[in-house]
Amino acid sequence: MVSPQKTFMNIAVLGTGAVGKLIAARLMSLGHDVTIGTRSPAATLARTDSRSLSFLQWLHVQPHLKLESYAHAAAGAEIIFNCTAGQGSLEALELAGTDNLNGKILIDLANPLDFSNGMPPILNPVNEDSLGEQIQRAFPEVHVVKALNTMNAEIMVDPAKISGDHAVFIAGNNEEAKESVRYLLMGFGWKSDYIFDLGDITAARSTEMLLPLWLRLSGRLGTMRFNFSVVR
Amino acid sequence: MVSPQKTFMNIAVLGTGAVGKLIAARLMSLGHDVTIGTRSPAATLARTDSRSLSFLQWLHVQPHLKLESYAHAAAGAEIIFNCTAGQGSLEALELAGTDNLNGKILIDLANPLDFSNGMPPILNPVNEDSLGEQIQRAFPEVHVVKALNTMNAEIMVDPAKISGDHAVFIAGNNEEAKESVRYLLMGFGWKSDYIFDLGDITAARSTEMLLPLWLRLSGRLGTMRFNFSVVR
Repeated sequence: MVSPQKTFMNIAVLGTGAVGKLIAARLMSLGHDVTIGTRSPAATLARTDSRSLSFLQWLHVQPHLKLESYAHAAAGAEIIFNCTAGQGSLEALELAGTDNLNGKILIDLANPLDFSNGMPPILNPVNEDSLGEQIQRAFPEVHVVKALNTMNAEIMVDPAKISGDHAVFIAGNNEEAKESVRYLLMGFGWKSDYIFDLGDITAARSTEMLLPLWLRLSGRLGTMRFNFSVVR
Repeated sequence: MVSPQKTFMNIAVLGTGAVGKLIAARLMSLGHDVTIGTRSPAATLARTDSRSLSFLQWLHVQPHLKLESYAHAAAGAEIIFNCTAGQGSLEALELAGTDNLNGKILIDLANPLDFSNGMPPILNPVNEDSLGEQIQRAFPEVHVVKALNTMNAEIMVDPAKISGDHAVFIAGNNEEAKESVRYLLMGFGWKSDYIFDLGDITAARSTEMLLPLWLRLSGRLGTMRFNFSVVR
């Protein structure tokens, strides 16, 4: 496993959506060697976006950032961020390949939001299971750490966007992996006292189940720029 | 409906557990006329408690507090607090009686925690339904307001027990009822800016689904004296 003391790492970011792009850009800015993984690099590069930069346009302003298949990105990485949509995460990780993931830290940012019956989405799985646990069961030799899934991506990578103290939750079975993730989060700007370790990966249920409240609050407050905190 | 401007009210607190006792005592201290409702007053008075005061002993140090059946308590009340255990709430409210509840504000503090498969409890219902919604459906002419169900009882009635700003969430279909509840919460010490109105009663899902995180955090922090906040 990667030592938390190692400053610059080879990191794969799986997923080319808003979360993946923000995580990748932030990791690059911190000096890490970053590869974005996607199902089909050709298809991702051909994608257009009516509202903002296409992926290709965005990639052009990210020097040194690489785009590869899930498998190639994971194979070259020491740490992997799962930034794929929750309902597709298991399939994306299968494409990344067990051999390319085993023994590594997988930081799972995804939420199993199911939009198939419209808005608001429901969670699937929920209550007695979680996406974090499903991933850990599917890849028992991967060190899955659930983290960062309870806030908007711009807050994940730059908690100072909100003044005041607010919380990030982590959960996973491997203490050393969680230490590495804590170190990465502090690199993003998270204060150590506000990184709450909830215990083993079954705690992923509790943070995924925060999503309905996040969605409600976001609608009522009219912003995604907020976060939860724990006050004692 | 009760005017939010009315200072002293006849209030029924259904439930004789820790939550009911703390809510009732706090309402009494604020000058309200409070009746605790229980399934069988005789059984409640006969109950012993190996760890603390029996209900009878506790009642002796609460001057003017009355103990009645669910139905009698609800009949005489303008506002009703549901402090029963979530899995028994619908039955308790049936015993209170539709006619005794109709047209009134019911503040639902309960969580549908299901301990039947051991610890940790799961939520039932969850995700696509909630206890708050079940109660609203069962009693369509009652103004159900979900509130206070995301923290320990000592924090509900005295938010100043925690220094710093922290949040209480309310949800319900009737705006006037929510205004009355907001007024009551401010009487408990809640700051108006930290009473978050999440919208209609379907938002009860989102606050009930906060319970797994509350339980995890309580275990990890080794205390029940904490609360969530929303930071912008």
